[in-house]
Amino acid sequence: MNTSRLETFSDGVMAVIITIMVLGLKVPSGASIYDLKPLLPNFLIYALSFLMLGIYWNNHHQLLRATKKVTSGIMWSNLLLLFCLSLIPFFTNWFGQHHAATVPTAAYGTVLLAAAIGYWTLLQSILKSDKRGIIRKAVGNDLKGNISLLSYLVSIPLAFVRPWLSIILFVFVAIIWFIPDKRLESVIED
Amino acid sequence: MNTSRLETFSDGVMAVIITIMVLGLKVPSGASIYDLKPLLPNFLIYALSFLMLGIYWNNHHQLLRATKKVTSGIMWSNLLLLFCLSLIPFFTNWFGQHHAATVPTAAYGTVLLAAAIGYWTLLQSILKSDKRGIIRKAVGNDLKGNISLLSYLVSIPLAFVRPWLSIILFVFVAIIWFIPDKRLESVIED
Amino acid sequence: MNTSRLETFSDGVMAVIITIMVLGLKVPSGASIYDLKPLLPNFLIYALSFLMLGIYWNNHHQLLRATKKVTSGIMWSNLLLLFCLSLIPFFTNWFGQHHAATVPTAAYGTVLLAAAIGYWTLLQSILKSDKRGIIRKAVGNDLKGNISLLSYLVSIPLAFVRPWLSIILFVFVAIIWFIPDKRLESVIED
Amino acid sequence: MNTSRLETFSDGVMAVIITIMVLGLKVPSGASIYDLKPLLPNFLIYALSFLMLGIYWNNHHQLLRATKKVTSGIMWSNLLLLFCLSLIPFFTNWFGQHHAATVPTAAYGTVLLAAAIGYWTLLQSILKSDKRGIIRKAVGNDLKGNISLLSYLVSIPLAFVRPWLSIILFVFVAIIWFIPDKRLESVIED
Repeated sequence: MNTSRLETFSDGVMAVIITIMVLGLKVPSGASIYDLKPLLPNFLIYALSFLMLGIYWNNHHQLLRATKKVTSGIMWSNLLLLFCLSLIPFFTNWFGQHHAATVPTAAYGTVLLAAAIGYWTLLQSILKSDKRGIIRKAVGNDLKGNISLLSYLVSIPLAFVRPWLSIILFVFVAIIWFIPDKRLESVIED
Repeated sequence: MNTSRLETFSDGVMAVIITIMVLGLKVPSGASIYDLKPLLPNFLIYALSFLMLGIYWNNHHQLLRATKKVTSGIMWSNLLLLFCLSLIPFFTNWFGQHHAATVPTAAYGTVLLAAAIGYWTLLQSILKSDKRGIIRKAVGNDLKGNISLLSYLVSIPLAFVRPWLSIILFVFVAIIWFIPDKRLESVIED
Repeated sequence: MNTSRLETFSDGVMAVIITIMVLGLKVPSGASIYDLKPLLPNFLIYALSFLMLGIYWNNHHQLLRATKKVTSGIMWSNLLLLFCLSLIPFFTNWFGQHHAATVPTAAYGTVLLAAAIGYWTLLQSILKSDKRGIIRKAVGNDLKGNISLLSYLVSIPLAFVRPWLSIILFVFVAIIWFIPDKRLESVIED
Repeated sequence: MNTSRLETFSDGVMAVIITIMVLGLKVPSGASIYDLKPLLPNFLIYALSFLMLGIYWNNHHQLLRATKKVTSGIMWSNLLLLFCLSLIPFFTNWFGQHHAATVPTAAYGTVLLAAAIGYWTLLQSILKSDKRGIIRKAVGNDLKGNISLLSYLVSIPLAFVRPWLSIILFVFVAIIWFIPDKRLESVIED
């Protein structure tokens, strides 16, 4: 069984998630620039979540391209990842409406942590079925993945101290993932 | 006529269904943890429906991979299945807002029963066009499918006695389908 | 240029249209069966539109499979068809909320007529690029297409006399299209 | 790495964007033709945005078909384009509700300018990886792209003078893009 239909379905789900988030941006009733202004934090948080989901899509894309066979474990851990990602629009909107508020920031961090755990679970399932050890070698010590998990974990209690410090951590993780994994890319090209 | 475009369309519809369900989770107006708490049953029911739809996608995926040719019967029974699945978000949201209430629980059981009948109809159409009898042999007596149909059927009157017993039945069906059909998998691998 | 990406995009748009229509079914605030009852006409009209869109997808699917090359004319007439189809959810919801009311019934007939004209335009563009005349021969006098156009045309003034007569016409068209075009199917199989 | 999955994801996102825009058309509570009349400008602006997105899809489609290899730069500039396009439904709805109002018109022009810049960035990334210079030769001086950028740029201040002049510019750009790029088409056919 090859990965093509799993990719199509995942692409579809991620395409819908990334797009319906925009429905959380409520059209203001007034027509002046001042009616748009209170939406600015919502736009920025929307942009951050869009970037996060784009990064997940990109990494998911590269990971599955390196995968040859879809096992049951891969199927279900992929579904777990998609479930976690599907909660991002809800928490993005809550976070957007109460920007820099303690609990929504911590909740946003929690859902990002859940998604990162989902991705980690998918990676483990793929590594388990990777008999030749090519992907394992490419992923190596998975420094980026571990930094992300740790950052999200720290961002949750940090939100109760200084929410904007958590936001800096979210942006930091987005930046480190922005550069695609050269090692995995080299495997795919072989 | 091969199955690829039928799969693409079905994947698309299922991807949208599974994702727009999250729009039923209304962002709370407050920013405290207590504002999120009343949404907990909604989240759990959302997770259950997400799992159900994931299971349908998975089984649908395996069934169509084993199918060689798309007949009119397959086309229309597939559309019937998608129609039943498209009603799941509506009933998930109703069930989520009135958790453990009699009628919404019974209605949720009814829509799951309808989807199971839709799937059964699709299976029959595929078996009818399966001249070599390979899929029929693989499906065998379709124990899981029959248990599901029976469970959903029982869950409807049961909701009028004890709604939580129906919920246990829903979770039970999800668990038995969680493990993909080994027999069908072996056919595909041939 | 082959038809595959045009099909993927059209499938995506049709999958989203067919699914977001369900968002027009508003979850009732009460939890009794009487709260669901006023939604029954909405459900029936939703089912009718779902069937209509399923028929369009099916015919679109068969038409594009018989097409070899995508010209500019095909591209734009396809977009026109998708635009007309994208208005169906809006008019389905309006028709559903005011079932058997004169103007919403006529408006629903108008949008179906627009979609039928869009499909006819796409067919003409495809026939124009069909140098070998295979599709033209298969389509023949396009009896079904002409009956549909005429039925929708009649349904609009008829709604001002007896709205339920228009509804009978809508169901009638759905039934005649339900059976896929044998002639076109035979071309594809060649 | 080939372009197929990038195209699938982009197609998915664009299909969802183009379709959820219709959710901005609010179903009127009344059932007469007069209840529909105030929605006419919304319909026209919806049609304009639908056409704009259709043009982007078409050009995106042709550009990626001419592309052989997906680099990191292409991946991220594609995501930037999709982000800008995803904001179109929001600004379409705002523009639709306050048609011919100064700020919503200027905001609509701004988001179209952002999308045009996103497309230009994608084009630059593709040209950079186009070692044989085939696409560069086909694109030539990119007259249409530059006219579009200039038109959107002019439309923003113009909205503060005469909003309907900006609207004429939007329609003008749609018309010049309506005809697909013959030069690029000829490359693909080679």
